[in-house]
Amino acid sequence: MLTYSFENIGKESIYEYLYKCIKKDIIEGKLATGEHLPSKRTLAVNLGISTITVENSYGQLMSEGYIYSVPKKGYYVADISGVAKIKPVKHEIPRIIVKEQTKYESDLSSNRTDPDSFPFATWAKLMRRVITDKKEALMKISPSEGTYELRRAIANHLASFRDMQVMPEQIVVGAGTEYMYSLLIQLLGRDKVYCVEDPGYSKIARIYASNNVKCCYADMDDEGIKPDAVRQCNADIVHISPTHHYPTGITMPVSRRFELLAWANEQSDRYIIEDDYDSEFRMTGKTIPTMKSIDISEKVIYMNTFSRTLTPTIRISYMVLPPHLAALYHEKLNFYACTVSNFEQYTLASFIEEGYFEKHLNRMRHYYMKQREEVLSVLKEDKYKCVGKVNEADSGLHFILELNTEYTDQEVKQKLEAEGIHINALSEYYHNKAESISHRFVISYSDIVINKFREACNKLIDLKQFE
Amino acid sequence: MLTYSFENIGKESIYEYLYKCIKKDIIEGKLATGEHLPSKRTLAVNLGISTITVENSYGQLMSEGYIYSVPKKGYYVADISGVAKIKPVKHEIPRIIVKEQTKYESDLSSNRTDPDSFPFATWAKLMRRVITDKKEALMKISPSEGTYELRRAIANHLASFRDMQVMPEQIVVGAGTEYMYSLLIQLLGRDKVYCVEDPGYSKIARIYASNNVKCCYADMDDEGIKPDAVRQCNADIVHISPTHHYPTGITMPVSRRFELLAWANEQSDRYIIEDDYDSEFRMTGKTIPTMKSIDISEKVIYMNTFSRTLTPTIRISYMVLPPHLAALYHEKLNFYACTVSNFEQYTLASFIEEGYFEKHLNRMRHYYMKQREEVLSVLKEDKYKCVGKVNEADSGLHFILELNTEYTDQEVKQKLEAEGIHINALSEYYHNKAESISHRFVISYSDIVINKFREACNKLIDLKQFE
Repeated sequence: MLTYSFENIGKESIYEYLYKCIKKDIIEGKLATGEHLPSKRTLAVNLGISTITVENSYGQLMSEGYIYSVPKKGYYVADISGVAKIKPVKHEIPRIIVKEQTKYESDLSSNRTDPDSFPFATWAKLMRRVITDKKEALMKISPSEGTYELRRAIANHLASFRDMQVMPEQIVVGAGTEYMYSLLIQLLGRDKVYCVEDPGYSKIARIYASNNVKCCYADMDDEGIKPDAVRQCNADIVHISPTHHYPTGITMPVSRRFELLAWANEQSDRYIIEDDYDSEFRMTGKTIPTMKSIDISEKVIYMNTFSRTLTPTIRISYMVLPPHLAALYHEKLNFYACTVSNFEQYTLASFIEEGYFEKHLNRMRHYYMKQREEVLSVLKEDKYKCVGKVNEADSGLHFILELNTEYTDQEVKQKLEAEGIHINALSEYYHNKAESISHRFVISYSDIVINKFREACNKLIDLKQFE
Repeated sequence: MLTYSFENIGKESIYEYLYKCIKKDIIEGKLATGEHLPSKRTLAVNLGISTITVENSYGQLMSEGYIYSVPKKGYYVADISGVAKIKPVKHEIPRIIVKEQTKYESDLSSNRTDPDSFPFATWAKLMRRVITDKKEALMKISPSEGTYELRRAIANHLASFRDMQVMPEQIVVGAGTEYMYSLLIQLLGRDKVYCVEDPGYSKIARIYASNNVKCCYADMDDEGIKPDAVRQCNADIVHISPTHHYPTGITMPVSRRFELLAWANEQSDRYIIEDDYDSEFRMTGKTIPTMKSIDISEKVIYMNTFSRTLTPTIRISYMVLPPHLAALYHEKLNFYACTVSNFEQYTLASFIEEGYFEKHLNRMRHYYMKQREEVLSVLKEDKYKCVGKVNEADSGLHFILELNTEYTDQEVKQKLEAEGIHINALSEYYHNKAESISHRFVISYSDIVINKFREACNKLIDLKQFE
């Protein structure tokens, strides 16, 4: 007979306590498979509790499958012998996950932006209005490609800002370009060869690798990715950033663009992914037209993100598909739910349509221009002239600094690291890390504090001579 | 010599207009490769405009690569012969994307929830507070796994609500379970065989297929997925919803759970994905404990989503990884940016931590209970008793109705469709669509209007006899 004491019962109910006691006995084998349990009434009388309580405990044990009932016979212990075949394992929980990132005295590679630059007040106002005015729409499931309102706002923005004539129906919205790449792999095919720029943004290749698709690297010259290199690796899809290549800063001239388009035209399943990640920050003149805008052959997939222009902590990116691919997306992939919440989709749509986005871009362009000028002017000061040569394309949020040093890139990096300065060498962005004594470094200036930069420059001067 | 008229110039600047004219002539071949362009001064005089204007136009053409300059010689037209190799293509833009979904008189398969049930006021209040108080945190890039605040809130919620003791470090937050599946494939391996329940939620298999991983189907009996069937298809990973299977509503008894855990214990790379999608909505008794909570062997990956409990239009899901997989995730996949915006991560964290989530769950549970009782009571009315037999597990937002009819499931569906009623047959959820005369239908009641339901029941009565 089951006997349990209710003396040490805490804030649990008796029903819950009894259920747990019996369950424990079953798991530990004190109550064996097939054993007949006392009737509800008998157990209730025995334990001095109500029949209802026992009934509730038995009921819970039944619904979890620890016991079963046979009509007119009563309750029996179920067979849970599987439990014996389970080996307890206990790994340490990786504490590393909460580790704070190293703080540098001066980080010349950070593309963090000033928190104050985000238009909090406007965003809060629009979010509040969306929540008040759009209850119905907010609760209505967004099409896989994103809400029509946001896609229309993006299409209008592209028309006025990028001179691109696209329909909202060609646009797919998603939670970050990284996620979009995995969608593109599903759309274009996992059997294709994806070609990336070398040097380039290493994450792109990493994402292709993590998705187990073939990824090849094509060399660049001073006009961008080399079509010969693309051919040599039998690529099907070329992934490039022609407006402003990261990290070299190269703008691909139109002749090279047409060459690549011609390459894509040779086969029906060749495509070009145009990653236009920081085109908004061209500092002088008009922005460089996109490849998409000269693509008359439905070969270019245009991608961009609001993470770069607003804040990386808002995850909204989009791609513009050629019409036939938009149709294919709808057929093959529209079973996926859109990954961006309606609340942010509608807020961003208002932000764009009411002109706030354009204002924000202008403000940020001025902010970055000023920041850039200040950083560059330090390098023009008599004292710091000797540091190195600046290589820049009046665009984007970084430039190349060719240091006046005889140390290898790795040595420079280590020496500066010891001084609390973080810097990335251009050579780090190469898949084939051949150019490790190029002395060229990528300076991301959006987060640089000028005084700290002067101090960093003093350390850079020290690199001129061997000790 | 270039001659352009500025008569029809619109609101463009002269510089922009001139740049466009020259560009057009180059693309159309009117200006041939290598052709020498007039000097800035000559062209300026000739067109009666300023030299600066010509300089700006030439500058833009240079940066786009339509022309190039040779020191002391002047400007030349670049080679864009690639343009000739591009075949214009123009597909229709798929209008289907904006098509409205069919409206039914009565939809017995919709799991839409009443827009009024979302706690707009609280959400707006918390969002506003987050934007005011957490500017710094909002702009700080979230760890790949999600902000610590949200993961801690989820861990606390799981402890008090699901009796699960997990560390925030084991939790990964992402924009929807669908996205999480693709992360799991990258984590566990694309060469593995993923096994799903048959019948089951078809989207899961579709996602595995779209990710090109082997997906097999295992039969179920009345205790859930059959371990024999799992073995037969050489599965490595089993994807199940043991608390409340969709669509059958089966709760897997503990004996079967231990059997599956024992199966997973036989090989080091076998895992169980436990999709706990609607466990919050068990109407009577305690919630059924998760498999995760009895997993002492680090074999269970627990998944759940706030899309089900809050609104499908907020995309926040999470998974709880066993410690060694959390470490592997951190090593292999933490280069991915978290797909949920900080704004919503912090708002949700407050929503949970300040007790609003629990309140919301209680409110929704009552709401659904009432809704469920009303729907079921209609089926108990004298007039509608004859409609069929209800099969339900006091849990989740749907039940099975076994119709009193001799028509095939497909015929029932079509006949009701003609009356403006949408209903899904259980047989539709089978991969092997064998049971097409089971007469069992899945009724999702969260969005049912009672009067409409009575009308629908009248039509269901008509199905009793052949015409």
